[in-house]
Amino acid sequence: MSKVSFDNKLMFTYESKSFPGVNKVAAMVRQDLYLVTGFHAGEYTKGCKCRNLVIYGTADKSDYLADLEERGLIDLDEVRGKWEVYGFYVLDNPMEGVDHALVIAGSDKRGTIYGLFHLSELLGVSPLVNWNHVFPKKKKNAFLTDSVNVVTKEPSVRYRGFFINDEWPAFGNWAMEHFGGINAECYERIFELLLRLKGNYLWPAMWNSNFSMDGPGLESARLADEYGVVMSTSHHEPCMRSGEEYRLLRGKSSIYGDAWDFIKNREGITRFWRDGLLRNRPFENVITLGMRGERDSLILPADASLKDNIDLLRDVLATQNNLIRETVDEDLSNVPRQMVLFSEVEKFFYGDDKTKGLMGDPQLDGVTLMLSDNNVGYLRTLPDKEMRDHPGGYGMYYHMDMHGGPYSFKWIGSTYLPRVWEQMTQAYEYGVRQIWVVNIGDIGTQELGLSYFLDLAYDIDRWGGTDSGVCDRYLDEWCERQFGGMLPLSGRSRIKKVIWDYTSLLEKRRHEIMNADVYHPLHFGEADRVLETSEAILKEAAAIRKKIDEQHMSAYISLLYFPACGTANLMKMWILAGRNKLFARQNRMEANSLVDEIDACVRNDAALIDEYESVDDGYYKGFGRSEHIGFVNWNEEDDRFPIRHLVYGANSPRMLVSRKDDEHYMTGLEWCDHPQTWRDMLRPDVDSIDFDLISGGQQPFRFRIFTDCSWLKFSATEGEVSRTKRIRLSVNKSVLEDKVTGTFDVENIGYGTVHVTVEASPPRAVSGFFMESDGYICMEAVHFSEKKDVSGGGFKVLLPYGRNGSAIKVFPSTADFKDKTKRPSVKYSFIALEDAEYELTFELAPTTPVSFEPVQYIAYSLNRGRIQCLNTVWQPDIPFFGSRQWSKEAMDSVKKVTTKVKCSKGENTLTFYGMSPSIVLERILLVKEGVTLPESYLGPGESFRGL
Amino acid sequence: MSKVSFDNKLMFTYESKSFPGVNKVAAMVRQDLYLVTGFHAGEYTKGCKCRNLVIYGTADKSDYLADLEERGLIDLDEVRGKWEVYGFYVLDNPMEGVDHALVIAGSDKRGTIYGLFHLSELLGVSPLVNWNHVFPKKKKNAFLTDSVNVVTKEPSVRYRGFFINDEWPAFGNWAMEHFGGINAECYERIFELLLRLKGNYLWPAMWNSNFSMDGPGLESARLADEYGVVMSTSHHEPCMRSGEEYRLLRGKSSIYGDAWDFIKNREGITRFWRDGLLRNRPFENVITLGMRGERDSLILPADASLKDNIDLLRDVLATQNNLIRETVDEDLSNVPRQMVLFSEVEKFFYGDDKTKGLMGDPQLDGVTLMLSDNNVGYLRTLPDKEMRDHPGGYGMYYHMDMHGGPYSFKWIGSTYLPRVWEQMTQAYEYGVRQIWVVNIGDIGTQELGLSYFLDLAYDIDRWGGTDSGVCDRYLDEWCERQFGGMLPLSGRSRIKKVIWDYTSLLEKRRHEIMNADVYHPLHFGEADRVLETSEAILKEAAAIRKKIDEQHMSAYISLLYFPACGTANLMKMWILAGRNKLFARQNRMEANSLVDEIDACVRNDAALIDEYESVDDGYYKGFGRSEHIGFVNWNEEDDRFPIRHLVYGANSPRMLVSRKDDEHYMTGLEWCDHPQTWRDMLRPDVDSIDFDLISGGQQPFRFRIFTDCSWLKFSATEGEVSRTKRIRLSVNKSVLEDKVTGTFDVENIGYGTVHVTVEASPPRAVSGFFMESDGYICMEAVHFSEKKDVSGGGFKVLLPYGRNGSAIKVFPSTADFKDKTKRPSVKYSFIALEDAEYELTFELAPTTPVSFEPVQYIAYSLNRGRIQCLNTVWQPDIPFFGSRQWSKEAMDSVKKVTTKVKCSKGENTLTFYGMSPSIVLERILLVKEGVTLPESYLGPGESFRGL
Repeated sequence: MSKVSFDNKLMFTYESKSFPGVNKVAAMVRQDLYLVTGFHAGEYTKGCKCRNLVIYGTADKSDYLADLEERGLIDLDEVRGKWEVYGFYVLDNPMEGVDHALVIAGSDKRGTIYGLFHLSELLGVSPLVNWNHVFPKKKKNAFLTDSVNVVTKEPSVRYRGFFINDEWPAFGNWAMEHFGGINAECYERIFELLLRLKGNYLWPAMWNSNFSMDGPGLESARLADEYGVVMSTSHHEPCMRSGEEYRLLRGKSSIYGDAWDFIKNREGITRFWRDGLLRNRPFENVITLGMRGERDSLILPADASLKDNIDLLRDVLATQNNLIRETVDEDLSNVPRQMVLFSEVEKFFYGDDKTKGLMGDPQLDGVTLMLSDNNVGYLRTLPDKEMRDHPGGYGMYYHMDMHGGPYSFKWIGSTYLPRVWEQMTQAYEYGVRQIWVVNIGDIGTQELGLSYFLDLAYDIDRWGGTDSGVCDRYLDEWCERQFGGMLPLSGRSRIKKVIWDYTSLLEKRRHEIMNADVYHPLHFGEADRVLETSEAILKEAAAIRKKIDEQHMSAYISLLYFPACGTANLMKMWILAGRNKLFARQNRMEANSLVDEIDACVRNDAALIDEYESVDDGYYKGFGRSEHIGFVNWNEEDDRFPIRHLVYGANSPRMLVSRKDDEHYMTGLEWCDHPQTWRDMLRPDVDSIDFDLISGGQQPFRFRIFTDCSWLKFSATEGEVSRTKRIRLSVNKSVLEDKVTGTFDVENIGYGTVHVTVEASPPRAVSGFFMESDGYICMEAVHFSEKKDVSGGGFKVLLPYGRNGSAIKVFPSTADFKDKTKRPSVKYSFIALEDAEYELTFELAPTTPVSFEPVQYIAYSLNRGRIQCLNTVWQPDIPFFGSRQWSKEAMDSVKKVTTKVKCSKGENTLTFYGMSPSIVLERILLVKEGVTLPESYLGPGESFRGL
Repeated sequence: MSKVSFDNKLMFTYESKSFPGVNKVAAMVRQDLYLVTGFHAGEYTKGCKCRNLVIYGTADKSDYLADLEERGLIDLDEVRGKWEVYGFYVLDNPMEGVDHALVIAGSDKRGTIYGLFHLSELLGVSPLVNWNHVFPKKKKNAFLTDSVNVVTKEPSVRYRGFFINDEWPAFGNWAMEHFGGINAECYERIFELLLRLKGNYLWPAMWNSNFSMDGPGLESARLADEYGVVMSTSHHEPCMRSGEEYRLLRGKSSIYGDAWDFIKNREGITRFWRDGLLRNRPFENVITLGMRGERDSLILPADASLKDNIDLLRDVLATQNNLIRETVDEDLSNVPRQMVLFSEVEKFFYGDDKTKGLMGDPQLDGVTLMLSDNNVGYLRTLPDKEMRDHPGGYGMYYHMDMHGGPYSFKWIGSTYLPRVWEQMTQAYEYGVRQIWVVNIGDIGTQELGLSYFLDLAYDIDRWGGTDSGVCDRYLDEWCERQFGGMLPLSGRSRIKKVIWDYTSLLEKRRHEIMNADVYHPLHFGEADRVLETSEAILKEAAAIRKKIDEQHMSAYISLLYFPACGTANLMKMWILAGRNKLFARQNRMEANSLVDEIDACVRNDAALIDEYESVDDGYYKGFGRSEHIGFVNWNEEDDRFPIRHLVYGANSPRMLVSRKDDEHYMTGLEWCDHPQTWRDMLRPDVDSIDFDLISGGQQPFRFRIFTDCSWLKFSATEGEVSRTKRIRLSVNKSVLEDKVTGTFDVENIGYGTVHVTVEASPPRAVSGFFMESDGYICMEAVHFSEKKDVSGGGFKVLLPYGRNGSAIKVFPSTADFKDKTKRPSVKYSFIALEDAEYELTFELAPTTPVSFEPVQYIAYSLNRGRIQCLNTVWQPDIPFFGSRQWSKEAMDSVKKVTTKVKCSKGENTLTFYGMSPSIVLERILLVKEGVTLPESYLGPGESFRGL
């Protein structure tokens, strides 16, 4: 067994013929080792004696490697000619005088770099070591044996990177603070981060920022190339010129003319593009083609025809391709190019019945077609089988940050890993493998989502697949990397739970579009659960914090404490605000104390940001400053902090009696009381009801509860209430023989008496069947009673997933059963209490149709009825992207499809079939005709199912 | 010229044969004179010398009068045998040794009493002298000459009185405090008040109160009879027994049985009634017939048929008439009896197509049929021509206080005199002349309305008629009576204005149903006007108060200060609450300062009540305590004080720009601004626009206004705003030659710029025509261009009247033109800007159909079109009373009838015709198709009319 030790005798080779970027990265890795071992590695001089040596280099660019190959110790053919791979070998006695060596042999510049960073990772150094100051665990005797020897495979996706976007106020202020601008010094940090995360591709910041001008000059571009970072530009910035360059250079006497208009200023624009291509041609790029309006807008007036737009684009593409031939390479197939089908450009690509789109246009040969998501993480169109052969392949422009419709989200990273896993794995299956780029805004607090995105792109086999549980395993590993240096395993598990909790809250509703009206303050306890989760996060993050050494505070606050607590505090604030609003409407005295609690949250929001921005000597300064509270428009303009509502107590002692999850209440007053019957305990699994005695008066009220039903028990039967008192009513169901009805009274002594009727029944249920209660049956999709796969595919459980935590989906993702006769299916069994019509709702993940045609089918059958097929798209006559449905589903994180069915009294079976691709079923809800469910965001809890 | 002086030698006669009540009243008048002159009148002994003597007595019950008649000095035949008249004569040397005398000769007990109180009035003593401690102006040389000699006519209405009702907490607490209960001592004060106000008839308190048992015993009834007060009982208390008596006396072993059920307990109930009749037969009564359920409820279950109910009532009436024959008088025509057609009883009277009602039933011969109002002051059915001959005549049960649907109003008296004038004068015209009774709740603060009601009933010729201006004259006189002792004429005029102002506010919306959502906080400036009026009232009432001597404070506070300020403060509170609610929704920083202002109003409400209840050593204690804030049900149960809304400022300086009467605003921000065009100045009479610069941020914003239009002038063009700054934009229209369009910008310096387009045109208008602007034409009904009367009647202007201050109505009120060919009419001339369809709305007073059939027609024609006839009743298939329309119109004080018409571009004439009776037209609104007027309670202001 060969072995190399990272002791105080460790040395690194150095070859000036290596890529300079490789040598720079080697220096970083030496610094990483120092953090682990406490020893600075020396520089090896050929021929000297050395106990432990790290030899690195790129095949055919290293004398050491050539020597080792010559001597048969390694086989560079394993890597030679490949894309970004490396061999990683622990060898004894590799050279004269050298006892042990680690050999890192890259196929190319980036392969070598990845190999070097692989060493850091193996020694427990996080890729975020310098970005978040994640200090690794110190090791006394660090070593590696040849069990780690490996030759990597090529990354799953060729270009993997991110987009620094929407950079004001966050990224911009951060860069100004630390580097005096978004310049090369700043980008060097970004390049390092990108490479450590196994990325290779970047869209630079472009709001008032010019990558190829601000380095200063070309310095940023030069440095990118040195590091092996492949530069590109965003979707609307052709020919390696950033969008703002034209604004700087245009003018009446400018050689580029004074109009961003290819028709009126063809010559100027063409020259502008040519000069960009010439300027950046020394470097490794992916060149954006096409043309949009300035600053992410339409290129032609809104009333221009589809044909006008397409014709213009054909002309532009031809022009740009000619310019590239002229300036970069006669053979376009040597030049990586992309066209991004973002926003309205998608429809120019697909065209319509009358107007052929750009699809198949020869100018796009060899051009990577960049598709995009729906702006919030669900993919728009994907290539169908025919399209997949497109020479140039496909890319994906994905959003973890958005400045645009249907809503902006720029503050704390809000990525829920299973969404990325499900959607991006699907993209890969559909052949989107050439470029993956993710908009991560200001980077700060986006580290988790970004890590996963790039790891998935690098190794789809490891982090993709059909089991969403992989996200949990990823999180284990990620927590180990970031928090391994500061916490034992138990602490890391607690952190993992906090991460799941806060990202699950965000999966239900993102920060910016959370407000007092999202969750109903009482119904189905949904707001209570969000509040409980939020408070648990705040408590747990604070408790863990006490165990963290000061040295690790930068990493802890930036990677966990701030994103988790910032999110939890915001959610808590809005839940309290919703409660305050409702309670004020009901004149509950508790509304007034909520005002102070809301205010504490508002102040805490600012305090958390201050803390994030001041920890580590202000290293994150700027990253917390995006507006994030109460958006009423797509962006922060005219946003609103919560309104606080203050009430006056009534002049006489006032009692309200309300089930804890019901906004209706009783007062016991003579004329306007609304007596209630509580039927909760007809549900087999319910044997208690919590209700509240609520004060609505200036003075407290005194109450007394009395009943002549011996089977009704109360947690309290008398007392005084000045705010709210919760009472538990319980029934020992084991003594019930049949359904019973009883009454009890709550007296507001001296003022009135509330009369309540209670119904309860013994816990009878049919095994395996969901039971109707309160007029509805709610079934989680994962709780099917039967599952049938077919040769073309079958349903699999996604857990965790979505806003309710689980779902089912057909794999493979590309399977389309619309025109098949055999379809995979799942069955759900339930008991209806009546022969009646029920409103049947399928709650689905808010995915979008995979084709440009606005159709996405689901199918079901009830009992022995025929298969019913429903198009989930509301308006099949307009493109899905930009539709009302797109907007609503993206905000609410759910797609609801509703129809009516006739159920039979007793046992029923509902079958759900695989049909169109990209359908993810979360839950099924049946509501009896005439029943109106209490208003809520998430809907009722799951119905009881007999064991 | 004969003359009598009220000097220190004044004496009063005294005869033991006089009615004891008359002598008691004489003593009161002597006390009144003392207040005026400072001299106590002596008691005259026959034969003695006397300089000035008051001789009073009842014809044929006074030796003095007999003597004077015998000697031909007075003619008692002028009064003898008449109902409640008196002769009032100043004579010199009436008797031996007497120099000057005032002779008061009544036709009967009450005639004499009214004559005595007439003396007090002539000397400036208010009828409220003892009720509100209204002290008269002191006079040094008080005298009367024979110019005041008069023989009165019989009162217009035979029985005139009020109903003390809904007496808890107000009246009940007042009575407990001062008299230890609602007993004879208490009633003596009531009887005096009633008689001084020229009433003669009373429904006593009956919530847990038994007039004929609590005196103690019959003492209250006996005392009433002594004073000549005719007692009755309320609508559901037959046979002189109060409603609660049965509850006290029933029981298993009771002789009256144990069920208020004429079918199951006929014997017990019959005996109960018989004993009541026997008990009270010594006194002058009007006996209530009929039967309803206990406590103002249904007598039979809600599902009983109409016929069941009517048959039961026939049986009850026959039984009661027989009992009266047996106990009171064999000849029923000698016995005043009434049946009250209140609530559901009305329909038993009218019956329906299939079931004949009680109308015309012989059992009702000689029984006064008491009709009623719609609970808020508009009459329900009135007798048609045939019905008017009913032997027994008609009465009216009217409400100035209500505990019931559609809403309760029990706090400060809310009577607007023109409503009473218009409706009760109409009642009289329809032959309702036998009994008028008004529910005035606890009496406190109802003095004005009550005074007018009884004065009108006493002398319809003086206070009725067809000119609502009579109300203003009445108020002059009333202010003179109440405030003459404390203020000079100018002060009384100011008080009169305050009274008009606060009762006009109540005519628009009563206290209890006022809330933050009634008036729109901005639109059409309606909330501003209510606020201005309210603040003016508060200021003026406080200013006047400074001029009031302590002695007069009891009267000033009870009759003016408390009702006016209590009302104004409540209206102000709600206007501020509405503003606070809207401003909070818009994130205006001003919302936060409004919170304190609302709180000040809430505290002031309590302070005003405390002051009212503590002035005059707590004389009014109890009267202020009715709940009156924020009713959400028909009564006070679950009522709500205003909610106060607090906002947080945005993180950056935020400017909102808004026309002062528009809830839409601009922010000047890049993406979500909503630019506006202001067209106000297209209206000929508008040459300026007020707009607000509003801060929505934590820090103030700095602004700058700029324009290149020289014709736009601004009251300010730069500054800093931390809350709100109002700017006036004005145009010198005299320099305009044609319509102009311009723009100006308001910059929130450093953050954004609002762009506003302004249109203006020279002031051109067509003489006599209303001009359309902003898509509507609004015309006050009184501004007709032409009026045509016919022989059967014609329109007259009502001014003041209704929620907008004026209206028109056809007189005589009984005229019905439905089936006539010639109808009175008025014409309205207006200019429409387009050939288009307009929504035409007639705003009418919320009167109800005069017949039981739910029809009430209006008619109009446009230009040369046919006459269109519209039924104003929404649901002609159900009785109007109890309908949704009844409830809504009663709350909003308006009836709206909407239809569509096609107007021509240019001149149009709309003709409105007299049709059904009881139609009062307030305004007409035309809104062009496609235009949605801003939401508001009162609607837009009147359109401009060319001179």
